[in-house]
Amino acid sequence: MNSIKNAPIGVFDSGVGGLTVAREIMRNLPMERIVYFGDTARVPYGSKSKDTIIRYSRQIIRFLKTQDVKAIVIACNTASALALEEVKKELDIPIIGVVKPGAKVAAETTRNKRIGVIGTAATAGSHLYRELICSINPEITVIEKACSLLCPLVEEGWLKDEITESVIRRYLEDLMEESIDTLILGCTHYPLLRSTFSKIVGEHVNLVNPAYETAQELKRLLDREHLASEGTVEEEFPYRFYVSDAAERFTDFANSILPYDVRITKQIPIEEY
Amino acid sequence: MNSIKNAPIGVFDSGVGGLTVAREIMRNLPMERIVYFGDTARVPYGSKSKDTIIRYSRQIIRFLKTQDVKAIVIACNTASALALEEVKKELDIPIIGVVKPGAKVAAETTRNKRIGVIGTAATAGSHLYRELICSINPEITVIEKACSLLCPLVEEGWLKDEITESVIRRYLEDLMEESIDTLILGCTHYPLLRSTFSKIVGEHVNLVNPAYETAQELKRLLDREHLASEGTVEEEFPYRFYVSDAAERFTDFANSILPYDVRITKQIPIEEY
Repeated sequence: MNSIKNAPIGVFDSGVGGLTVAREIMRNLPMERIVYFGDTARVPYGSKSKDTIIRYSRQIIRFLKTQDVKAIVIACNTASALALEEVKKELDIPIIGVVKPGAKVAAETTRNKRIGVIGTAATAGSHLYRELICSINPEITVIEKACSLLCPLVEEGWLKDEITESVIRRYLEDLMEESIDTLILGCTHYPLLRSTFSKIVGEHVNLVNPAYETAQELKRLLDREHLASEGTVEEEFPYRFYVSDAAERFTDFANSILPYDVRITKQIPIEEY
Repeated sequence: MNSIKNAPIGVFDSGVGGLTVAREIMRNLPMERIVYFGDTARVPYGSKSKDTIIRYSRQIIRFLKTQDVKAIVIACNTASALALEEVKKELDIPIIGVVKPGAKVAAETTRNKRIGVIGTAATAGSHLYRELICSINPEITVIEKACSLLCPLVEEGWLKDEITESVIRRYLEDLMEESIDTLILGCTHYPLLRSTFSKIVGEHVNLVNPAYETAQELKRLLDREHLASEGTVEEEFPYRFYVSDAAERFTDFANSILPYDVRITKQIPIEEY
């Protein structure tokens, strides 16, 4: 039993965005080991179809299983929205996504019952945030908006930048006219633009970061399933990073946002899993 | 021999950008049939490594061979820059890319011997345009610039747009200070932004579109190899389109830029080739 408890959590994303989720797990569950996989060869997922995202998610889960993970976190809104329900049926370990925890907190947060959701085209098109929020409280109005350029802007490193601000202003224009009081950052890249979002939407709009909520949900899940690590993380490298392409670039990005010194990222041939 | 002459040309790209090359082939070689493949599941190529782009190109070429193509055009600057030399060795039919024709015309066009090249990070990082231009005339200075956000902006449909203009201005700032008189649009998406480029660089800078030059190069190649189609293209669908994901979206985009009514795009599992 102990060996299962000390097994790592598998965390995956289409690329670097999921590191904002890994960061919250590191902060909030410091005893847990992590195996992170970023599908950098096939990023972005946000413009792909449901079938393709399910196929890619299955391959990644097969890889993570070879790493003996005790639970899996889909640290990608698109894959959470389009693949979680499908792959969950096939798995014998717990798996959670980022959408449900984000939807739950947003539903609890809104006062005027008007919530905005921004994400990739695939996430917005899935309407999963709307569906989950309305199943909690059918009186809430949810307005979804695809913001396809925000991931590329983050990947380009234009974080505090007037062009990025103009792009965000344009995407949020409609949402702001809808008088939302809560905005879900429905893509794991977006927390890296948090200060610009705050500036544009103003203090009266609550920003919901599903990454943080997901770490809390993971904590409850591990406790409930008696899977929480009981020892301390003593080994030198409690966090292992794998990608499908361009490992060095990933390592640089990871080191710019994680509270941990990423030394090595390994590249694996994900298509073979 | 006739049946070989009437075989189609295989044209491939990471996604929709290569349609600007297909368009030039349709206009300039109206007797030729085309099988187009867009790797929409794995787009973009511009941020991927050389090894990955070679692997993907090999899979696509294996697929195109099943379509009995008589020649192949790599209608993608990134794949032309990183994979052409490698895959050429393995092929028994002619294959050309877009980089060499573009480099040749740019070298012939410049008067002040200062050429700018814009493209993806992978294309700029390969330095192939510089290498080819300098092998033609070592006195020419070539300045390369990665413009990673331009493909996403085109894919978002923000073609004549003030934000796109601001992004282009920022990317071109350094190049314009270098007093270039010739600018290579080194990504097949960029001809769709041609009017904005013209406005920003002014009339004294020549814009080189490798798509047009590639169609001319293909024409010479087919004549030289006695492979040019001699009949007329009589069948109802001389152009066939295949993608690895999201066929419907591709069809819409193709219809917006091609002088041809694209009815059906087929999705194929490219990873299995």
